[in-house]
Amino acid sequence: MRVIRSVRSIQQFIKKAKLAGKTVGFVPTMGALHDGHRSLLRRCRRENDIVVLSVFVNPGQFGPKEDFAKYPRREQTDKKLAKKEKVDIMFLPSVKEMYPGGYLTYIDVEKMTRVLCGKSRPGHFKGVTTVVGKLLNIVMPDTLYLGQKDAQQAAALTRMTRDLNFPVIVKICPTVREADGLAMSSRNQYLTERARGEAAVLYRSLKEGRQSVIAGNHSVTAIICKIRSRITRESSGRIDYVECVDAGTVMPLKKIQGKTMIALAVWFGKTRLIDNIIVHA
Amino acid sequence: MRVIRSVRSIQQFIKKAKLAGKTVGFVPTMGALHDGHRSLLRRCRRENDIVVLSVFVNPGQFGPKEDFAKYPRREQTDKKLAKKEKVDIMFLPSVKEMYPGGYLTYIDVEKMTRVLCGKSRPGHFKGVTTVVGKLLNIVMPDTLYLGQKDAQQAAALTRMTRDLNFPVIVKICPTVREADGLAMSSRNQYLTERARGEAAVLYRSLKEGRQSVIAGNHSVTAIICKIRSRITRESSGRIDYVECVDAGTVMPLKKIQGKTMIALAVWFGKTRLIDNIIVHA
Repeated sequence: MRVIRSVRSIQQFIKKAKLAGKTVGFVPTMGALHDGHRSLLRRCRRENDIVVLSVFVNPGQFGPKEDFAKYPRREQTDKKLAKKEKVDIMFLPSVKEMYPGGYLTYIDVEKMTRVLCGKSRPGHFKGVTTVVGKLLNIVMPDTLYLGQKDAQQAAALTRMTRDLNFPVIVKICPTVREADGLAMSSRNQYLTERARGEAAVLYRSLKEGRQSVIAGNHSVTAIICKIRSRITRESSGRIDYVECVDAGTVMPLKKIQGKTMIALAVWFGKTRLIDNIIVHA
Repeated sequence: MRVIRSVRSIQQFIKKAKLAGKTVGFVPTMGALHDGHRSLLRRCRRENDIVVLSVFVNPGQFGPKEDFAKYPRREQTDKKLAKKEKVDIMFLPSVKEMYPGGYLTYIDVEKMTRVLCGKSRPGHFKGVTTVVGKLLNIVMPDTLYLGQKDAQQAAALTRMTRDLNFPVIVKICPTVREADGLAMSSRNQYLTERARGEAAVLYRSLKEGRQSVIAGNHSVTAIICKIRSRITRESSGRIDYVECVDAGTVMPLKKIQGKTMIALAVWFGKTRLIDNIIVHA
Protein backbone atom coordinates (compact mmCIF):
# COMPACT_ATOMS: atom_id res chain seq x y z
CA MET A 1 0.00 0.00 0.00
CA ARG A 2 1.24 3.46 -0.91
CA VAL A 3 0.64 6.34 1.46
CA ILE A 4 0.40 9.58 -0.53
CA ARG A 5 0.08 13.02 1.04
CA SER A 6 0.37 15.35 -1.96
CA VAL A 7 -2.34 16.18 -4.48
CA ARG A 8 0.11 16.33 -7.35
CA SER A 9 1.58 12.88 -6.61
CA ILE A 10 -1.74 11.10 -6.41
CA GLN A 11 -3.05 12.83 -9.55
CA GLN A 12 0.07 11.71 -11.44
CA PHE A 13 -0.26 8.16 -10.13
CA ILE A 14 -3.95 7.92 -11.06
CA LYS A 15 -3.42 9.44 -14.52
CA LYS A 16 -0.84 6.74 -15.27
CA ALA A 17 -3.08 4.00 -13.92
CA LYS A 18 -6.03 5.16 -16.02
CA LEU A 19 -3.85 5.41 -19.11
CA ALA A 20 -3.04 1.74 -18.46
CA GLY A 21 -6.78 1.01 -18.48
CA LYS A 22 -7.16 0.40 -14.74
CA THR A 23 -10.46 1.12 -13.00
CA VAL A 24 -10.34 3.23 -9.86
CA GLY A 25 -12.68 2.93 -6.87
CA PHE A 26 -12.71 5.53 -4.11
CA VAL A 27 -13.79 5.56 -0.47
CA PRO A 28 -13.53 9.04 1.11
CA THR A 29 -13.46 9.04 4.93
CA MET A 30 -12.51 11.10 7.96
CA GLY A 31 -10.63 8.10 9.39
CA ALA A 32 -11.18 6.38 12.72
CA LEU A 33 -12.19 3.52 10.48
CA HIS A 34 -14.79 1.02 11.63
CA ASP A 35 -16.69 -1.91 10.12
CA GLY A 36 -18.91 0.50 8.17
CA HIS A 37 -15.88 1.86 6.29
CA ARG A 38 -14.60 -1.69 5.97
CA SER A 39 -17.71 -2.82 4.12
CA LEU A 40 -17.22 0.08 1.66
CA LEU A 41 -13.56 -0.89 1.16
CA ARG A 42 -14.46 -4.54 0.56
CA ARG A 43 -17.03 -3.73 -2.06
CA CYS A 44 -14.61 -1.28 -3.64
CA ARG A 45 -11.89 -3.97 -3.64
CA ARG A 46 -14.17 -6.48 -5.36
CA GLU A 47 -15.23 -4.05 -8.07
CA ASN A 48 -12.05 -2.15 -9.04
CA ASP A 49 -8.43 -2.58 -10.11
CA ILE A 50 -7.26 0.20 -7.82
CA VAL A 51 -8.72 1.04 -4.42
CA VAL A 52 -8.13 4.55 -3.09
CA LEU A 53 -9.00 5.40 0.52
CA SER A 54 -8.75 9.00 1.67
CA VAL A 55 -8.52 9.96 5.32
CA PHE A 56 -9.03 13.68 5.84
CA VAL A 57 -10.71 15.33 8.80
CA ASN A 58 -12.15 18.21 6.81
CA PRO A 59 -12.37 21.44 8.84
CA GLY A 60 -14.80 22.85 6.26
CA GLN A 61 -17.63 20.60 7.39
CA PHE A 62 -17.41 21.32 11.12
CA GLY A 63 -19.23 24.28 12.66
CA PRO A 64 -17.29 26.62 14.99
CA LYS A 65 -18.79 24.91 18.08
CA GLU A 66 -18.46 21.37 16.74
CA ASP A 67 -15.96 18.59 17.43
CA PHE A 68 -13.25 19.25 14.81
CA ALA A 69 -10.44 19.44 17.40
CA LYS A 70 -11.47 16.33 19.30
CA TYR A 71 -12.61 14.25 16.30
CA PRO A 72 -10.69 10.94 16.61
CA ARG A 73 -7.42 10.71 14.60
CA ARG A 74 -6.09 7.16 14.40
CA GLU A 75 -3.54 7.23 11.58
CA GLN A 76 -1.62 4.13 12.65
CA THR A 77 -4.61 1.85 13.27
CA ASP A 78 -6.30 3.19 10.11
CA LYS A 79 -3.20 2.27 8.10
CA LYS A 80 -3.19 -1.28 9.47
CA LEU A 81 -6.86 -1.70 8.68
CA ALA A 82 -6.39 -0.26 5.19
CA LYS A 83 -3.57 -2.72 4.49
CA LYS A 84 -5.71 -5.60 5.73
CA GLU A 85 -8.47 -4.53 3.33
CA LYS A 86 -5.94 -4.44 0.46
CA VAL A 87 -6.19 -0.72 -0.19
CA ASP A 88 -3.75 0.33 -2.94
CA ILE A 89 -3.48 4.01 -2.12
CA MET A 90 -4.16 5.73 1.17
CA PHE A 91 -4.44 9.48 0.56
CA LEU A 92 -3.63 11.47 3.70
CA PRO A 93 -3.42 15.16 2.80
CA SER A 94 -2.81 17.92 5.34
CA VAL A 95 -5.30 20.75 5.78
CA LYS A 96 -2.80 23.05 4.08
CA GLU A 97 -2.50 20.71 1.09
CA MET A 98 -6.28 20.76 0.65
CA TYR A 99 -6.92 24.43 1.53
CA PRO A 100 -3.81 26.45 0.67
CA GLY A 101 -3.63 30.21 1.22
CA GLY A 102 -6.06 32.25 -0.86
CA TYR A 103 -8.66 29.48 -1.05
CA LEU A 104 -12.03 30.89 -2.23
CA THR A 105 -14.14 28.24 -4.00
CA TYR A 106 -17.17 26.35 -2.67
CA ILE A 107 -19.66 23.86 -4.10
CA ASP A 108 -23.17 24.14 -2.75
CA VAL A 109 -26.17 21.88 -3.32
CA GLU A 110 -29.16 24.05 -2.55
CA LYS A 111 -32.49 23.12 -0.93
CA MET A 112 -31.80 19.48 0.01
CA THR A 113 -28.90 20.51 2.26
CA ARG A 114 -31.04 22.99 4.19
CA VAL A 115 -33.32 20.38 5.76
CA LEU A 116 -32.68 17.62 8.36
CA CYS A 117 -29.03 17.83 9.53
CA GLY A 118 -28.57 20.96 7.41
CA LYS A 119 -30.90 22.86 9.74
CA SER A 120 -28.88 22.20 12.88
CA ARG A 121 -25.51 22.21 11.10
CA PRO A 122 -25.56 25.26 8.78
CA GLY A 123 -22.66 25.13 6.29
CA HIS A 124 -21.90 21.48 7.06
CA PHE A 125 -22.98 20.08 3.71
CA LYS A 126 -21.30 22.90 1.78
CA GLY A 127 -18.09 21.73 3.46
CA VAL A 128 -18.84 18.13 2.49
CA THR A 129 -19.74 18.80 -1.15
CA THR A 130 -16.73 21.09 -1.59
CA VAL A 131 -14.22 18.60 -0.20
CA VAL A 132 -15.69 15.65 -2.08
CA GLY A 133 -15.76 17.70 -5.29
CA LYS A 134 -12.06 18.36 -4.74
CA LEU A 135 -11.37 14.70 -3.94
CA LEU A 136 -13.16 13.57 -7.10
CA ASN A 137 -10.88 15.82 -9.14
CA ILE A 138 -7.85 14.56 -7.25
CA VAL A 139 -8.62 10.82 -7.30
CA MET A 140 -10.59 10.73 -10.60
CA PRO A 141 -12.41 7.53 -9.61
CA ASP A 142 -14.72 5.53 -11.83
CA THR A 143 -16.82 4.66 -8.80
CA LEU A 144 -17.41 6.44 -5.49
CA TYR A 145 -18.58 4.43 -2.45
CA LEU A 146 -20.66 6.09 0.26
CA GLY A 147 -22.51 4.81 3.30
CA GLN A 148 -26.28 4.92 3.71
CA LYS A 149 -25.84 5.87 7.39
CA ASP A 150 -25.07 9.45 6.26
CA ALA A 151 -28.12 9.42 4.00
CA GLN A 152 -28.45 13.16 3.44
CA GLN A 153 -24.76 13.39 2.63
CA ALA A 154 -25.10 10.52 0.16
CA ALA A 155 -28.14 12.18 -1.44
CA ALA A 156 -26.43 15.58 -1.72
CA LEU A 157 -23.25 14.06 -3.16
CA THR A 158 -25.24 12.02 -5.66
CA ARG A 159 -27.07 15.21 -6.68
CA MET A 160 -23.75 17.05 -6.95
CA THR A 161 -22.07 14.43 -9.14
CA ARG A 162 -25.08 14.41 -11.48
CA ASP A 163 -25.55 18.18 -11.58
CA LEU A 164 -21.85 18.91 -12.16
CA ASN A 165 -21.45 15.95 -14.55
CA PHE A 166 -18.61 14.33 -12.63
CA PRO A 167 -17.68 11.23 -14.69
CA VAL A 168 -18.24 8.90 -11.74
CA ILE A 169 -20.77 6.30 -10.61
CA VAL A 170 -21.98 6.66 -7.02
CA LYS A 171 -22.74 3.50 -5.06
CA ILE A 172 -24.43 3.78 -1.69
CA CYS A 173 -23.82 0.84 0.64
CA PRO A 174 -25.98 -0.41 3.53
CA THR A 175 -25.43 0.83 7.07
CA VAL A 176 -23.37 -1.56 9.18
CA ARG A 177 -24.67 -1.95 12.74
CA GLU A 178 -23.46 -3.13 16.13
CA ALA A 179 -25.07 -6.28 17.56
CA ASP A 180 -27.77 -4.20 19.28
CA GLY A 181 -28.59 -2.28 16.10
CA LEU A 182 -26.68 0.97 16.74
CA ALA A 183 -25.33 2.29 13.42
CA MET A 184 -21.51 2.23 13.31
CA SER A 185 -20.01 5.70 13.61
CA SER A 186 -16.64 7.12 14.60
CA ARG A 187 -18.56 9.28 17.07
CA ASN A 188 -19.95 6.28 19.00
CA GLN A 189 -16.71 6.22 21.00
CA TYR A 190 -17.66 9.59 22.54
CA LEU A 191 -20.64 7.94 24.30
CA THR A 192 -20.68 7.18 28.03
CA GLU A 193 -21.43 3.57 28.88
CA ARG A 194 -24.98 4.46 29.83
CA ALA A 195 -25.62 6.47 26.65
CA ARG A 196 -24.07 3.67 24.56
CA GLY A 197 -26.60 1.27 26.06
CA GLU A 198 -29.51 3.62 25.51
CA ALA A 199 -28.51 4.54 21.92
CA ALA A 200 -29.82 1.23 20.58
CA VAL A 201 -33.28 2.79 20.93
CA LEU A 202 -32.65 4.78 17.73
CA TYR A 203 -32.71 1.83 15.37
CA ARG A 204 -35.38 0.06 17.46
CA SER A 205 -37.65 3.05 17.09
CA LEU A 206 -36.92 3.35 13.35
CA LYS A 207 -37.82 -0.31 12.85
CA GLU A 208 -41.02 0.23 14.79
CA GLY A 209 -41.79 3.21 12.56
CA ARG A 210 -41.19 1.14 9.44
CA GLN A 211 -43.40 -1.67 10.74
CA SER A 212 -46.15 0.82 11.35
CA VAL A 213 -45.90 2.14 7.76
CA ILE A 214 -45.92 -1.41 6.39
CA ALA A 215 -49.00 -2.11 8.48
CA GLY A 216 -50.75 0.70 6.61
CA ASN A 217 -50.15 3.82 8.70
CA HIS A 218 -49.24 6.56 6.20
CA SER A 219 -49.57 9.53 8.52
CA VAL A 220 -46.27 11.40 8.90
CA THR A 221 -47.34 12.88 12.24
CA ALA A 222 -48.37 9.52 13.68
CA ILE A 223 -45.11 7.82 12.67
CA ILE A 224 -42.98 10.68 13.97
CA CYS A 225 -44.89 10.76 17.30
CA LYS A 226 -44.49 7.04 17.77
CA ILE A 227 -40.71 7.26 17.25
CA ARG A 228 -40.26 10.38 19.37
CA SER A 229 -42.18 8.96 22.29
CA ARG A 230 -40.28 5.69 22.24
CA ILE A 231 -36.92 7.52 22.23
CA THR A 232 -38.02 9.81 25.05
CA ARG A 233 -39.46 6.91 27.06
CA GLU A 234 -36.49 4.60 26.69
CA SER A 235 -33.49 6.94 26.80
CA SER A 236 -32.10 10.21 28.03
CA GLY A 237 -31.48 11.34 24.42
CA ARG A 238 -32.53 14.85 23.36
CA ILE A 239 -34.19 14.70 19.97
CA ASP A 240 -32.83 17.08 17.29
CA TYR A 241 -35.26 15.84 14.63
CA VAL A 242 -37.33 12.88 13.52
CA GLU A 243 -38.64 13.28 9.96
CA CYS A 244 -40.23 11.40 7.09
CA VAL A 245 -38.72 12.48 3.77
CA ASP A 246 -38.58 11.48 0.13
CA ALA A 247 -35.65 9.05 -0.03
CA GLY A 248 -34.25 10.62 -3.20
CA THR A 249 -34.61 14.35 -2.57
CA VAL A 250 -34.65 14.15 1.29
CA MET A 251 -37.43 16.78 1.26
CA PRO A 252 -40.12 16.42 3.96
CA LEU A 253 -43.28 14.54 3.00
CA LYS A 254 -46.83 15.50 3.87
CA LYS A 255 -48.03 11.93 3.51
CA ILE A 256 -45.95 8.77 3.44
CA GLN A 257 -45.86 7.40 -0.09
CA GLY A 258 -43.27 5.99 -2.47
CA LYS A 259 -39.71 5.36 -1.36
CA THR A 260 -39.69 7.06 2.03
CA MET A 261 -36.83 7.62 4.44
CA ILE A 262 -37.46 7.98 8.16
CA ALA A 263 -34.45 9.89 9.49
CA LEU A 264 -33.47 11.11 12.92
CA ALA A 265 -30.77 12.89 14.87
CA VAL A 266 -30.56 12.60 18.65
CA TRP A 267 -28.15 14.08 21.17
CA PHE A 268 -26.66 11.93 23.91
CA GLY A 269 -24.79 14.41 26.07
CA LYS A 270 -22.54 16.33 23.66
CA THR A 271 -22.68 13.58 21.03
CA ARG A 272 -25.13 13.82 18.17
CA LEU A 273 -26.06 10.52 16.54
CA ILE A 274 -27.94 10.06 13.26
CA ASP A 275 -29.67 7.10 11.71
CA ASN A 276 -32.31 6.32 9.08
CA ILE A 277 -34.37 3.58 7.55
CA ILE A 278 -36.03 3.19 4.15
CA VAL A 279 -39.59 2.02 3.66
CA HIS A 280 -41.58 1.59 0.46
CA ALA A 281 -45.15 2.73 0.95
CA MET B 1 -15.69 17.58 -37.31
CA ARG B 2 -18.20 15.85 -35.06
CA VAL B 3 -21.13 17.80 -33.66
CA ILE B 4 -22.16 16.31 -30.32
CA ARG B 5 -25.18 17.46 -28.31
CA SER B 6 -25.32 14.92 -25.48
CA VAL B 7 -23.19 14.89 -22.35
CA ARG B 8 -22.99 11.12 -22.27
CA SER B 9 -21.77 10.87 -25.89
CA ILE B 10 -19.00 13.40 -25.52
CA GLN B 11 -17.85 11.90 -22.20
CA GLN B 12 -17.64 8.47 -23.85
CA PHE B 13 -15.76 9.86 -26.83
CA ILE B 14 -13.25 11.71 -24.65
CA LYS B 15 -12.70 8.75 -22.33
CA LYS B 16 -11.78 6.61 -25.32
CA ALA B 17 -9.49 9.28 -26.73
CA LYS B 18 -7.70 9.70 -23.41
CA LEU B 19 -7.31 5.96 -23.04
CA ALA B 20 -5.56 6.09 -26.42
CA GLY B 21 -3.18 8.68 -24.98
CA LYS B 22 -4.56 11.71 -26.83
CA THR B 23 -4.30 15.18 -25.34
CA VAL B 24 -7.47 17.26 -25.23
CA GLY B 25 -7.66 21.06 -25.50
CA PHE B 26 -10.90 22.93 -24.78
CA VAL B 27 -12.30 26.31 -25.78
CA PRO B 28 -15.65 27.06 -24.06
CA THR B 29 -17.72 29.80 -25.74
CA MET B 30 -21.21 31.22 -26.06
CA GLY B 31 -20.88 31.15 -29.85
CA ALA B 32 -21.22 34.08 -32.27
CA LEU B 33 -17.56 33.30 -32.85
CA HIS B 34 -15.16 36.09 -33.79
CA ASP B 35 -11.42 36.47 -34.27
CA GLY B 36 -10.90 36.41 -30.50
CA HIS B 37 -12.34 32.89 -30.28
CA ARG B 38 -10.39 32.02 -33.40
CA SER B 39 -7.09 32.85 -31.79
CA LEU B 40 -7.99 30.55 -28.88
CA LEU B 41 -8.90 27.75 -31.29
CA ARG B 42 -5.66 28.18 -33.22
CA ARG B 43 -3.50 27.95 -30.13
CA CYS B 44 -5.57 24.99 -28.95
CA ARG B 45 -5.09 23.30 -32.34
CA ARG B 46 -1.32 23.77 -32.22
CA GLU B 47 -1.01 22.35 -28.72
CA ASN B 48 -3.39 19.37 -28.61
CA ASP B 49 -4.34 16.13 -30.37
CA ILE B 50 -8.04 16.83 -29.95
CA VAL B 51 -9.69 20.26 -30.04
CA VAL B 52 -13.08 20.60 -28.37
CA LEU B 53 -15.14 23.77 -28.85
CA SER B 54 -18.32 24.21 -26.85
CA VAL B 55 -21.05 26.65 -27.85
CA PHE B 56 -23.60 27.15 -25.11
CA VAL B 57 -25.44 30.35 -24.29
CA ASN B 58 -25.61 29.70 -20.57
CA PRO B 59 -28.78 31.12 -18.99
CA GLY B 60 -27.17 30.81 -15.55
CA GLN B 61 -24.80 33.70 -16.18
CA PHE B 62 -27.38 36.23 -17.38
CA GLY B 63 -29.30 38.40 -14.92
CA PRO B 64 -33.11 38.64 -15.24
CA LYS B 65 -32.82 42.00 -17.03
CA GLU B 66 -29.87 41.02 -19.21
CA ASP B 67 -29.62 40.00 -22.87
CA PHE B 68 -30.04 36.18 -22.68
CA ALA B 69 -32.96 36.15 -25.13
CA LYS B 70 -31.34 38.42 -27.69
CA TYR B 71 -27.75 37.15 -27.32
CA PRO B 72 -26.65 36.27 -30.88
CA ARG B 73 -27.06 32.59 -31.90
CA ARG B 74 -25.17 31.75 -35.11
CA GLU B 75 -25.02 27.98 -35.19
CA GLN B 76 -24.44 27.63 -38.92
CA THR B 77 -21.72 30.25 -39.26
CA ASP B 78 -20.11 29.04 -36.04
CA LYS B 79 -19.96 25.51 -37.47
CA LYS B 80 -18.29 26.74 -40.65
CA LEU B 81 -15.73 28.71 -38.70
CA ALA B 82 -15.09 25.73 -36.38
CA LYS B 83 -14.45 23.46 -39.35
CA LYS B 84 -12.08 25.99 -40.85
CA GLU B 85 -10.15 26.08 -37.58
CA LYS B 86 -9.95 22.26 -37.60
CA VAL B 87 -12.02 21.71 -34.50
CA ASP B 88 -12.48 17.98 -33.82
CA ILE B 89 -15.58 18.16 -31.64
CA MET B 90 -18.14 20.91 -31.45
CA PHE B 91 -20.23 20.42 -28.31
CA LEU B 92 -23.66 22.02 -28.65
CA PRO B 93 -25.81 21.01 -25.68
CA SER B 94 -29.34 22.27 -25.09
CA VAL B 95 -30.25 24.12 -21.90
CA LYS B 96 -32.18 21.02 -20.79
CA GLU B 97 -29.16 18.80 -21.38
CA MET B 98 -27.04 21.05 -19.14
CA TYR B 99 -29.70 21.87 -16.52
CA PRO B 100 -32.17 19.00 -16.33
CA GLY B 101 -35.11 19.07 -13.92
CA GLY B 102 -34.19 19.09 -10.23
CA TYR B 103 -30.88 20.89 -10.80
CA LEU B 104 -29.52 22.26 -7.47
CA THR B 105 -25.70 22.57 -7.53
CA TYR B 106 -23.60 25.72 -7.86
CA ILE B 107 -19.89 26.53 -7.75
CA ASP B 108 -19.03 29.89 -6.27
CA VAL B 109 -15.68 31.66 -6.08
CA GLU B 110 -16.05 34.13 -3.25
CA LYS B 111 -14.60 37.64 -2.86
CA MET B 112 -12.95 38.08 -6.30
CA THR B 113 -16.32 37.68 -8.05
CA ARG B 114 -17.96 40.38 -5.93
CA VAL B 115 -15.86 43.26 -7.32
CA LEU B 116 -15.69 44.88 -10.81
CA CYS B 117 -18.31 43.24 -13.07
CA GLY B 118 -19.54 41.16 -10.10
CA LYS B 119 -20.90 44.35 -8.51
CA SER B 120 -23.14 45.28 -11.41
CA ARG B 121 -23.90 41.69 -12.43
CA PRO B 122 -24.73 39.82 -9.19
CA GLY B 123 -24.78 36.06 -9.73
CA HIS B 124 -23.08 36.33 -13.13
CA PHE B 125 -19.79 34.71 -12.13
CA LYS B 126 -21.53 32.00 -10.12
CA GLY B 127 -23.24 31.09 -13.39
CA VAL B 128 -19.90 31.13 -15.20
CA THR B 129 -17.96 29.05 -12.67
CA THR B 130 -20.81 26.53 -12.41
CA VAL B 131 -21.11 25.98 -16.14
CA VAL B 132 -17.36 25.81 -16.70
CA GLY B 133 -17.03 23.38 -13.77
CA LYS B 134 -19.64 21.22 -15.51
CA LEU B 135 -17.92 21.57 -18.87
CA LEU B 136 -14.56 20.56 -17.39
CA ASN B 137 -16.15 17.36 -16.06
CA ILE B 138 -17.83 16.75 -19.41
CA VAL B 139 -14.86 17.49 -21.71
CA MET B 140 -12.06 16.44 -19.30
CA PRO B 141 -9.49 18.59 -21.11
CA ASP B 142 -5.78 18.67 -20.37
CA THR B 143 -5.75 22.38 -21.22
CA LEU B 144 -8.41 25.07 -21.03
CA TYR B 145 -8.09 28.20 -23.20
CA LEU B 146 -9.61 31.51 -22.07
CA GLY B 147 -9.42 35.07 -23.34
CA GLN B 148 -7.81 37.93 -21.44
CA LYS B 149 -10.65 40.24 -22.55
CA ASP B 150 -12.85 38.68 -19.87
CA ALA B 151 -10.10 39.11 -17.31
CA GLN B 152 -12.18 38.70 -14.16
CA GLN B 153 -13.77 35.58 -15.59
CA ALA B 154 -10.33 34.18 -16.44
CA ALA B 155 -9.07 34.99 -12.93
CA ALA B 156 -12.10 33.41 -11.23
CA LEU B 157 -11.91 30.28 -13.39
CA THR B 158 -8.17 29.95 -12.75
CA ARG B 159 -8.88 30.25 -9.01
CA MET B 160 -11.67 27.68 -9.30
CA THR B 161 -9.57 25.10 -11.15
CA ARG B 162 -6.80 25.43 -8.55
CA ASP B 163 -9.08 25.44 -5.52
CA LEU B 164 -11.13 22.47 -6.69
CA ASN B 165 -8.04 20.62 -8.02
CA PHE B 166 -9.39 20.19 -11.54
CA PRO B 167 -6.66 18.26 -13.40
CA VAL B 168 -6.35 20.94 -16.10
CA ILE B 169 -3.91 23.64 -17.14
CA VAL B 170 -5.46 27.07 -17.79
CA LYS B 171 -3.97 29.21 -20.55
CA ILE B 172 -5.08 32.80 -20.90
CA CYS B 173 -4.64 34.26 -24.38
CA PRO B 174 -4.24 37.92 -25.41
CA THR B 175 -7.25 40.04 -26.33
CA VAL B 176 -7.79 40.32 -30.07
CA ARG B 177 -8.77 43.82 -31.23
CA GLU B 178 -10.39 45.54 -34.17
CA ALA B 179 -8.21 47.88 -36.26
CA ASP B 180 -9.16 50.86 -34.06
CA GLY B 181 -8.37 48.96 -30.84
CA LEU B 182 -11.87 47.92 -29.76
CA ALA B 183 -11.70 44.50 -28.07
CA MET B 184 -13.51 41.82 -30.08
CA SER B 185 -16.79 40.80 -28.47
CA SER B 186 -19.97 39.11 -29.63
CA ARG B 187 -21.80 42.07 -28.11
CA ASN B 188 -20.10 44.63 -30.41
CA GLN B 189 -22.74 43.87 -33.02
CA TYR B 190 -25.39 45.43 -30.73
CA LEU B 191 -23.70 48.85 -31.13
CA THR B 192 -25.14 51.63 -33.25
CA GLU B 193 -22.77 52.99 -35.87
CA ARG B 194 -22.10 56.05 -33.76
CA ALA B 195 -21.44 54.04 -30.60
CA ARG B 196 -19.22 51.65 -32.54
CA GLY B 197 -17.09 54.61 -33.61
CA GLU B 198 -16.93 56.05 -30.11
CA ALA B 199 -16.16 52.72 -28.43
CA ALA B 200 -12.53 52.84 -29.57
CA VAL B 201 -12.01 55.36 -26.77
CA LEU B 202 -11.98 52.48 -24.24
CA TYR B 203 -8.69 51.00 -25.35
CA ARG B 204 -7.24 54.44 -26.13
CA SER B 205 -7.94 55.54 -22.59
CA LEU B 206 -6.53 52.30 -21.13
CA LYS B 207 -3.31 52.77 -23.11
CA GLU B 208 -3.09 56.35 -21.90
CA GLY B 209 -3.53 55.06 -18.31
CA ARG B 210 -0.79 52.52 -18.81
CA GLN B 211 1.55 55.13 -20.25
CA SER B 212 0.93 57.30 -17.26
CA VAL B 213 1.81 54.44 -14.87
CA ILE B 214 4.96 53.66 -16.85
CA ALA B 215 5.88 57.36 -16.66
CA GLY B 216 5.84 56.99 -12.86
CA ASN B 217 2.32 57.91 -11.80
CA HIS B 218 1.33 55.30 -9.21
CA SER B 219 -1.76 57.03 -7.84
CA VAL B 220 -4.88 54.94 -8.39
CA THR B 221 -7.12 57.99 -8.20
CA ALA B 222 -5.09 59.95 -10.72
CA ILE B 223 -5.05 57.10 -13.25
CA ILE B 224 -8.77 56.41 -12.85
CA CYS B 225 -9.62 60.12 -13.22
CA LYS B 226 -7.54 60.43 -16.36
CA ILE B 227 -9.32 57.48 -17.97
CA ARG B 228 -12.80 58.51 -16.83
CA SER B 229 -12.45 62.03 -18.11
CA ARG B 230 -11.16 60.90 -21.49
CA ILE B 231 -14.08 58.49 -21.93
CA THR B 232 -16.58 61.13 -20.88
CA ARG B 233 -14.96 63.75 -23.11
CA GLU B 234 -14.69 61.60 -26.22
CA SER B 235 -17.86 59.50 -26.16
CA SER B 236 -21.46 59.22 -25.01
CA GLY B 237 -20.60 56.10 -22.96
CA ARG B 238 -21.88 55.86 -19.38
CA ILE B 239 -19.14 54.53 -17.14
CA ASP B 240 -20.01 51.51 -14.96
CA TYR B 241 -16.53 51.30 -13.43
CA VAL B 242 -12.88 52.10 -14.03
CA GLU B 243 -10.59 50.39 -11.51
CA CYS B 244 -6.99 49.51 -10.80
CA VAL B 245 -6.72 45.99 -9.37
CA ASP B 246 -4.17 43.30 -8.60
CA ALA B 247 -3.91 41.32 -11.86
CA GLY B 248 -4.00 37.95 -10.05
CA THR B 249 -6.67 38.45 -7.42
CA VAL B 250 -8.57 41.29 -9.22
CA MET B 251 -8.94 43.00 -5.82
CA PRO B 252 -8.78 46.83 -5.83
CA LEU B 253 -5.39 48.40 -5.13
CA LYS B 254 -4.72 51.39 -2.93
CA LYS B 255 -1.51 52.18 -4.74
CA ILE B 256 -0.37 50.91 -8.11
CA GLN B 257 2.40 48.34 -7.63
CA GLY B 258 3.33 44.94 -9.00
CA LYS B 259 1.35 43.38 -11.84
CA THR B 260 -1.61 45.71 -12.07
CA MET B 261 -4.72 45.49 -14.21
CA ILE B 262 -6.63 48.58 -15.23
CA ALA B 263 -10.16 47.38 -15.98
CA LEU B 264 -13.31 49.14 -17.10
CA ALA B 265 -16.93 48.60 -18.06
CA VAL B 266 -18.85 51.22 -20.03
CA TRP B 267 -22.43 51.32 -21.30
CA PHE B 268 -23.17 52.42 -24.85
CA GLY B 269 -26.95 52.53 -24.96
CA LYS B 270 -28.09 49.14 -23.69
CA THR B 271 -24.76 47.50 -24.49
CA ARG B 272 -22.17 47.08 -21.78
CA LEU B 273 -18.58 46.74 -23.01
CA ILE B 274 -15.58 45.66 -20.94
CA ASP B 275 -11.85 45.91 -21.50
CA ASN B 276 -8.60 45.85 -19.56
CA ILE B 277 -4.87 46.32 -19.81
CA ILE B 278 -1.97 44.99 -17.74
CA VAL B 279 0.90 47.16 -16.53
CA HIS B 280 3.90 46.21 -14.40
CA ALA B 281 4.64 48.94 -11.88
